[in-house]
Amino acid sequence: MAGEETGILQEAYPMKEEDREMAAEETGIPQEAYPMKGGDGHYSYAKNSTHQRKGIDFAKELIKAAIAEKLDKEILFSSKTFRIADLGCSVGPNTFFAVQNIVEAVESKYQHCQGLNSQIPDFQVFFSDHTANDFNLLFTSLPNDRRYYAAGVPGSFHGRLFPKDSLHFVHSSYAVHWLSRVPMEVVNKKSRAWNKGRIHYSSSGDEVFLAYKAQFDKDIEQFLQARAQEIVCGGLMALIVPGIPNGTHHSQNGSSMNFELLGSCLMDLARKGMVSEEKVDSFNIPTYQLSPQELEAAVERNGCFSIEEIEDLHVPVPSHSGEYKINGQVAASHLRAVMEGIIKQHFDEKILDVLFDCYRKKFDEIDFSIFKSGKVNNFFFLLKRKAMNQATG
Amino acid sequence: MAGEETGILQEAYPMKEEDREMAAEETGIPQEAYPMKGGDGHYSYAKNSTHQRKGIDFAKELIKAAIAEKLDKEILFSSKTFRIADLGCSVGPNTFFAVQNIVEAVESKYQHCQGLNSQIPDFQVFFSDHTANDFNLLFTSLPNDRRYYAAGVPGSFHGRLFPKDSLHFVHSSYAVHWLSRVPMEVVNKKSRAWNKGRIHYSSSGDEVFLAYKAQFDKDIEQFLQARAQEIVCGGLMALIVPGIPNGTHHSQNGSSMNFELLGSCLMDLARKGMVSEEKVDSFNIPTYQLSPQELEAAVERNGCFSIEEIEDLHVPVPSHSGEYKINGQVAASHLRAVMEGIIKQHFDEKILDVLFDCYRKKFDEIDFSIFKSGKVNNFFFLLKRKAMNQATG
Repeated sequence: MAGEETGILQEAYPMKEEDREMAAEETGIPQEAYPMKGGDGHYSYAKNSTHQRKGIDFAKELIKAAIAEKLDKEILFSSKTFRIADLGCSVGPNTFFAVQNIVEAVESKYQHCQGLNSQIPDFQVFFSDHTANDFNLLFTSLPNDRRYYAAGVPGSFHGRLFPKDSLHFVHSSYAVHWLSRVPMEVVNKKSRAWNKGRIHYSSSGDEVFLAYKAQFDKDIEQFLQARAQEIVCGGLMALIVPGIPNGTHHSQNGSSMNFELLGSCLMDLARKGMVSEEKVDSFNIPTYQLSPQELEAAVERNGCFSIEEIEDLHVPVPSHSGEYKINGQVAASHLRAVMEGIIKQHFDEKILDVLFDCYRKKFDEIDFSIFKSGKVNNFFFLLKRKAMNQATG
Repeated sequence: MAGEETGILQEAYPMKEEDREMAAEETGIPQEAYPMKGGDGHYSYAKNSTHQRKGIDFAKELIKAAIAEKLDKEILFSSKTFRIADLGCSVGPNTFFAVQNIVEAVESKYQHCQGLNSQIPDFQVFFSDHTANDFNLLFTSLPNDRRYYAAGVPGSFHGRLFPKDSLHFVHSSYAVHWLSRVPMEVVNKKSRAWNKGRIHYSSSGDEVFLAYKAQFDKDIEQFLQARAQEIVCGGLMALIVPGIPNGTHHSQNGSSMNFELLGSCLMDLARKGMVSEEKVDSFNIPTYQLSPQELEAAVERNGCFSIEEIEDLHVPVPSHSGEYKINGQVAASHLRAVMEGIIKQHFDEKILDVLFDCYRKKFDEIDFSIFKSGKVNNFFFLLKRKAMNQATG
């Protein structure tokens, strides 16, 4: 492959359209296919991402502490511009809260290093997401009182997005669990991993789970390889990722259960003849709930980063009451903001209302029982780009 | 002003919405208000910018020569990343041709400097335009075989858009003649510069022209001040700007005549009662056709750049025959791609079809006579950021 020969991943020299279509045919889903719902309408991600906002809020203090304690002073004074990237930023407002927190923490670190008598540098923030992301909305939503120069970067984070050694802090929340594609085997009727009648691996056999896991391992390898080239030595990367605790079975997870519920609605639609069963068989959601161990193993294989911190953010599970309450309507809107694109692409726009109405009803009927039995874990990982000799040594 | 105190222009710390609205009320047109027509439809800029493409084609060899002869070797080897910005890029494809030409010229320069045995650096290209530009279309149109990392930067080039000393080559074509706003006096009934019944200064009295000129002088000052901070010492800036030759009267210009024709159509609509005459009186197109002397004077006032080159590109005037032929239909589509946004904002979307149909008919009727008598000049300016001691000395 040309990418391997030159040491530059595909995204830097993106695929030709024909190759992209071929890849798409293999998997049934093109590589860059599932941006969050754009615009500012009722079902938009902008208005339906309070759960993801929770994670960012819970990670806030961890990121501040990380910058105060783990960001080398050399990083601060090595460049006139401090460059930050948020990968999988979507359309806002969540990305703006996260970035603001990072900028403030770095500013405060500069102010603490007064001995060096230096000026606070300019900040440049790169908001990055799939090309199909609604960047127009992102740009019109940029905070007026921001203290940074903003740029949008389109493309998949499974490949290179930035010049070599150009980033000082990378942030990514609720994004790395998205796979670059549906694993090929799970949509192949002849494969033992064919995922008939289901849309995720949660309640499937081991073959399906292992196909997903293999895809995740490949994707996280590409992700880390690209970031290792883009982040300066000593630079930090904070990842907020929904996942499962070490040693937990993948079926014991709230997010997976959520997909199971959505899958059962799709099968209801198939029974009613609104979609073909075959179409449901060939539909799979390309996300993977990692365990901390899996990320640790990937980081070790990559060799360019040290893991500085792993925390469970203990984001509360939504409940019917309390500060963080939820019902079928809210849950359906949140899920729709995330899933509408991928469902529209595979099925037809027409099924959206019926599908999410079915989901809403089932969600209210089951009264959270399946979610209560499962767990929702959101992990915070802090990685540091090792110095050259450490990385190769 | 806060901007002046901190040395950072307003765009870096954008105005609050209230301030923006106040500024808008003063002029009748908000500061960032006239992106080229987005999308890929019949009247889109993407499909109606062959005239602007001509200018880029005619400047191609000049830019190659500029990079070969005028770009200091120190610039090439001072950073791992070579950063290029295209200001007023619109949605493509023109910006991609321009940027590709620059990247190839810089690559070729690196290859000539083999003695230094260095690797070609990564290229990062910033595509910048108003926030209201259709960046979604720009991003999906990015060439697949590009050899650079792409980013979009929203905002007005009359303010800061990039960190200090971060750009090596700035390009801008058919953009700098756009003013940041309509000069206040020309929409003020009490002013001697009130531009009643006209939409540009072309056939107006001196007061109107001078109000436009004053606005241009202010805008080009802000433009150069911002770029002086963003471009590294020794970095280059290439500007392609429609203008008029030194010593020519502003009425003797094809572009101005074009606006006169459009203005006469608006007055026709007023006579038919489709728009109010008052509405036409308060509508003015915020563009200014500069002369090379005016740019030279602005560069001198600014003090941070040297002018390395001024050329008339001798882009042929469109004709009925030959390679570069045009008729009312084509002329109307081109003008609509550029003007639709600003007209929609001031009047109503409903008048667009009638207005440009009127323009098309008049254009065909007059058989180019007014354009033939005028001239269309497109200037190429090459500026170089002086070294610090030169700039302050």
